[in-house]
Amino acid sequence: MCFVYNADPERGQEWQRLFAQHAPELPFRLWPEVRDPAEVRYLGTWEPVDALERFANLEIVFSLGAGIDQFDLAAIPSHVPLVRMQEPGIVATMQEYVAMAVLALHRDLIDYLGQQRMGIWKPRRVRPAAYRSVGILGLGQLGAAVAERLSGLGFPCRGWSRTPRQLAGVTCYAGESALGDFLAGSEILVCLLPLTERTRGILDATLFERLPRGACLVNVGRGAHLIDADLLQALDRGQLSAAVLDVCDPEPPPADHPLWHHPRILLTPHVASMTQPESAVAMVLDNIARHRAGREMVGVVDRRRGY
Amino acid sequence: MCFVYNADPERGQEWQRLFAQHAPELPFRLWPEVRDPAEVRYLGTWEPVDALERFANLEIVFSLGAGIDQFDLAAIPSHVPLVRMQEPGIVATMQEYVAMAVLALHRDLIDYLGQQRMGIWKPRRVRPAAYRSVGILGLGQLGAAVAERLSGLGFPCRGWSRTPRQLAGVTCYAGESALGDFLAGSEILVCLLPLTERTRGILDATLFERLPRGACLVNVGRGAHLIDADLLQALDRGQLSAAVLDVCDPEPPPADHPLWHHPRILLTPHVASMTQPESAVAMVLDNIARHRAGREMVGVVDRRRGY
Repeated sequence: MCFVYNADPERGQEWQRLFAQHAPELPFRLWPEVRDPAEVRYLGTWEPVDALERFANLEIVFSLGAGIDQFDLAAIPSHVPLVRMQEPGIVATMQEYVAMAVLALHRDLIDYLGQQRMGIWKPRRVRPAAYRSVGILGLGQLGAAVAERLSGLGFPCRGWSRTPRQLAGVTCYAGESALGDFLAGSEILVCLLPLTERTRGILDATLFERLPRGACLVNVGRGAHLIDADLLQALDRGQLSAAVLDVCDPEPPPADHPLWHHPRILLTPHVASMTQPESAVAMVLDNIARHRAGREMVGVVDRRRGY
Repeated sequence: MCFVYNADPERGQEWQRLFAQHAPELPFRLWPEVRDPAEVRYLGTWEPVDALERFANLEIVFSLGAGIDQFDLAAIPSHVPLVRMQEPGIVATMQEYVAMAVLALHRDLIDYLGQQRMGIWKPRRVRPAAYRSVGILGLGQLGAAVAERLSGLGFPCRGWSRTPRQLAGVTCYAGESALGDFLAGSEILVCLLPLTERTRGILDATLFERLPRGACLVNVGRGAHLIDADLLQALDRGQLSAAVLDVCDPEPPPADHPLWHHPRILLTPHVASMTQPESAVAMVLDNIARHRAGREMVGVVDRRRGY
């Protein structure tokens, strides 16, 4: 019996140390160092792993990120649960990044970066956050935590989800029919949806038209949520005024892609949130203990919904 | 009897409207439109005004900004109190700006801006705010509010002031003798000191040497707190890794000044905080009412301390 880790090797060393400390009885292997396929009981992986059926005793697959869209669910044996990473480190780092992105858009940082390059000293009128409404697409664990953080910073927040949610201090909208009202009041739109067949390409020209003119976009979901060409056109027409993108499709974008050089786009290399070894190992070990005790695990993917 | 406003004319229109609404009995004049010097009872001004002695009935000078270093205190008749702007809008906008700046430094935004320009997709390890200590120089109204905001974002905060202060959740240091200990644990240093003869040039090579190697600087105090040449040298040597500057001396910097083009400096045109007409007018009218009633006003400058 062992736990196999298949992701960034540098952080893998930290996982190994943490397993040795907190679960010395459970052997830990860094992929691809597996001696016998039959010993693989638990797999923690960022990327899909081929031919999982060869691990006859596999009991759980842990995604090491918050999303699971990179996995082909049909390729994971149906009796093996797939568990998403839901740990405080991912949540905290996502809250930080979105707070940074929303504040930067709210306080005209993209304009000032351009002015600095051109040697222009031109203050713009400042209005407090209370005058800028933010809309969050997706109210799962991350969306809800981000809404709470942004509310705490003084932004009036609204959120949209497919099924109804209630969050203190957040005006909640649910379902297709409420999407228009939600978008019409979102001066900064943050995408934190899961990527499914229903949300692929949702950030398109039609959606941008429903935002207030001059709105801003923060995409911290997945690159495939966004139709790049529609974003570029909306920026150039002034329907959108700026965008902060942490994800794109593909990653990285091709060398000559306009996302690299558009003056109204800030692009970061998929770093908005990052699994933190200490809290992630605690979450994985807790789930393994729950599984052994026959209790429900935290973060099990609903294969039908796709998240 | 009248109130005279001497600052940005666009916001002056809003002040005029707010005075008409909340103090219709008090005539409001936009500088320089003053009919009779004797009618000037209250002066609200951003810049110093010459020859104040000609306003024989002047009772209060209101600074329209949080600082008063632009004024020559000796040029204000000694029986006329000078009142600093202490209103919630200045505080809220300063909290926002510093949160943005500290998050941007914490999350390597300056590196990612450079990478984007060069077409490089290279994630850096993310650690939550709990692993990054922030030091705030100056624990007046703004410094204390900023410390509270940054603590709320998860940063361990420490603060330094000339005289001892106590703030919940902030490790407080006071006086020259504690400055070294304070600096040694400040990975991001935020300057929110008043500008006085004792603080002029305080951000110099000696101070930078006392910070941890690779520390970052946020200057939202005054440009004259900073010795530009020492900052540039500390950045080039790696003692500091980045700086966000909202102020400089002079403003704007000369066209060929390196502050415009240094790749490790973000420069914004003195927009960190801005007086908000609604709350500022409320504060001014409240102080006028206090003064008439013989009660103490809020924000009166101690001429001996210089703030």
